[in-house]
Amino acid sequence: MIVEVLAIGTEVVLGETINTNASWLSSQMTHHGFQVKFHTSIPDEESLILEALQLASRRSKIVLVTGGLGPTVDDMTLDVAAKFFKRERVIHSESLEKIRHIFQHLKKTMTPNQERQARLIKGGTPLSNSVGTAPGLHLLENEVHFAFLPGVPSEMQEMFRKELLPIFKKIQPEKFQVIRSLCCFGPPEGQIDTVLQELMNQRREIAGAEVGLKIRFPNIDIRLKTSHSNPQEAQRIVDHAAQLILEKLPDCIFGGGEDTLQEVLSRLLIEKNKTIATAESCTGGLLANWITNVPGASQYFLAGVVSYSNTAKVEMLEVSEKTLEEKGAVSAETALEMARGVQKKTGADLSISITGIAGPTGGNDQKPVGTVFIAVVHSKEEWVKEFHFPLGRLRFKQLAAATALDRVRKILLKML
Amino acid sequence: MIVEVLAIGTEVVLGETINTNASWLSSQMTHHGFQVKFHTSIPDEESLILEALQLASRRSKIVLVTGGLGPTVDDMTLDVAAKFFKRERVIHSESLEKIRHIFQHLKKTMTPNQERQARLIKGGTPLSNSVGTAPGLHLLENEVHFAFLPGVPSEMQEMFRKELLPIFKKIQPEKFQVIRSLCCFGPPEGQIDTVLQELMNQRREIAGAEVGLKIRFPNIDIRLKTSHSNPQEAQRIVDHAAQLILEKLPDCIFGGGEDTLQEVLSRLLIEKNKTIATAESCTGGLLANWITNVPGASQYFLAGVVSYSNTAKVEMLEVSEKTLEEKGAVSAETALEMARGVQKKTGADLSISITGIAGPTGGNDQKPVGTVFIAVVHSKEEWVKEFHFPLGRLRFKQLAAATALDRVRKILLKML
Repeated sequence: MIVEVLAIGTEVVLGETINTNASWLSSQMTHHGFQVKFHTSIPDEESLILEALQLASRRSKIVLVTGGLGPTVDDMTLDVAAKFFKRERVIHSESLEKIRHIFQHLKKTMTPNQERQARLIKGGTPLSNSVGTAPGLHLLENEVHFAFLPGVPSEMQEMFRKELLPIFKKIQPEKFQVIRSLCCFGPPEGQIDTVLQELMNQRREIAGAEVGLKIRFPNIDIRLKTSHSNPQEAQRIVDHAAQLILEKLPDCIFGGGEDTLQEVLSRLLIEKNKTIATAESCTGGLLANWITNVPGASQYFLAGVVSYSNTAKVEMLEVSEKTLEEKGAVSAETALEMARGVQKKTGADLSISITGIAGPTGGNDQKPVGTVFIAVVHSKEEWVKEFHFPLGRLRFKQLAAATALDRVRKILLKML
Repeated sequence: MIVEVLAIGTEVVLGETINTNASWLSSQMTHHGFQVKFHTSIPDEESLILEALQLASRRSKIVLVTGGLGPTVDDMTLDVAAKFFKRERVIHSESLEKIRHIFQHLKKTMTPNQERQARLIKGGTPLSNSVGTAPGLHLLENEVHFAFLPGVPSEMQEMFRKELLPIFKKIQPEKFQVIRSLCCFGPPEGQIDTVLQELMNQRREIAGAEVGLKIRFPNIDIRLKTSHSNPQEAQRIVDHAAQLILEKLPDCIFGGGEDTLQEVLSRLLIEKNKTIATAESCTGGLLANWITNVPGASQYFLAGVVSYSNTAKVEMLEVSEKTLEEKGAVSAETALEMARGVQKKTGADLSISITGIAGPTGGNDQKPVGTVFIAVVHSKEEWVKEFHFPLGRLRFKQLAAATALDRVRKILLKML
């Protein structure tokens, strides 16, 4: 079952948008046992869209088209597709109602061009869009599956998972591919690879499972993959390989699949019925933001303080002026006092603090850009450590926040 | 001069590597006046590489091939290309010397497969690799330019800039392309498009400049593009079109290029010498995080409070328990008290607060998921407003934070 991913959008071929949809869809399709062989991107031009559909229908059995479903004149994917299939356009009244409803709800005027999005193609199956307005479409033509998905990644991903994958699962190939990811935080890629090499053969396999590393900064995923006619057997092979790796890298593997540290921490905090609070300086709210990205975070996250200025550290967290003067805002002592302060204010079971120099300015010889102190206070124990992350400002913030989350995760695991 | 970018690499079509090379090369080529019409990605398979070269040579005048130049057996691009061109392979002794030299320098043993990288194709021009080992190649076949570049982005970019661009500059079209982006926040895509339609002709041009819309959630960019033999004239055309659009949409255009609201706000706060503080509930630190992503934010950002629990709202921001009980945590009154509270604690010139229901749970009939109140307190003025953003949790957070930033931007502009 050869798959082609076809992106339609002038912004893609002009290089203004990176086509992350192609890699995301390919990962998904590969995972479900399909063979992706082609990615194509073309501009919003009728003749090129027609040619691309023609070519894809000859060489592929599944054609995943992204982009061009929106309300504007640029969005011509379905107009051209209808010509290609020689089929009529039909208004999908359910989608039209949904679009009207969204506009009513937003209290915005619905311009006539919005209606275009509900004009689908006769004989196709509408794919509902739970994130945005434009529905997608699946249709079968001469035994080739065509799926038309929105270009906006969040809309496309939801539609793929909820609407399209159930259709494709019914036509899944006989060989079952099983992929399992182990999510790692801590050691750099080279170090993980060196550890894995002790287990791998020359084809980079561990006990029959192919091994790959994928950077999902600040995490690294170890991906194990195998194919087998018996899905249980495929699963057994990757699970066995995963077990061997877990024995070699017990501390740094925090989850599986697409897990993030904050999701794993969320499960642990709920399981152990603990609350948490944060006090951030250099990460500027990123830590609290990550924690609150997880639905239901209000069960355990009480509050965060972003004490960017020294005055805020004193006023909001009761950091002593003496400590700031003698040890500096970026010091183990200040980090500890920040964590204690937010613990005192909120009564949280665990409190985390981060203070450091994100850069590009603000460093000196003793404390260069990239220096950061992280503290965790819980029950009567206190932990604080200095780190050096000489990265750009945004990556520095991410690595510091992830290091703090990982520390709390390890503390909670020991609380068993 | 139609350009095609062809990526060769199994990791790309499996979705393991995002093809950023295609967008980078397209930006470069577009900037230099070439028209990129096709991106294609295929795995490391001889038959597919042959077909792709065949197709590209028919439809394009410049074919930029990335990937498959390395030392491993997978790296077969030049082997297959030599077959396609029916030309001999030749060892490029200068490249071979360079590779040997690199290995000596690294004190590593040079495995025989490394030599493969110096086997180029007869009649082609070697492109030196100043970052890695594998040289690239440029050759002209039936008036089509083929360039073979490494897949590693840093190597590819250096080679393109230093080696390939000088060749292409000689065949550059006489026309210069100018692109200008106007960054919008507020109205949805359809509404912006409707306003622009009053200015556009049927070819979607305004005063000679092509118009395109690009969603960069929560912002929308209006892109203006034109080509002209005189670069000053091209600039004048897009600037004139931009002026016409600015007159129609004066409030929602906040910047140009790749601007974000927090960057524009940063410039305004520094220019007007004002400080700012935040009090967030449902956005959970995202607002503070965005503000502190801008280098130098410590000049104007004093502190943020993420008062997720009601206790935190009372303890840290002095929101009255009566207000919380009578009006609820998600109310105009609570939003105002949060903004006043953080203003009082920090002494900031402007304080912003956000309280709402991000979902997926926590909504009710009166206040459904997506309800949010945003308040801004500055000098003696107070502003508060209710919004409804029925989106997913993460987009809700983004739209609420952006709406708050945009409001402060507008307040600062009136402070002139």
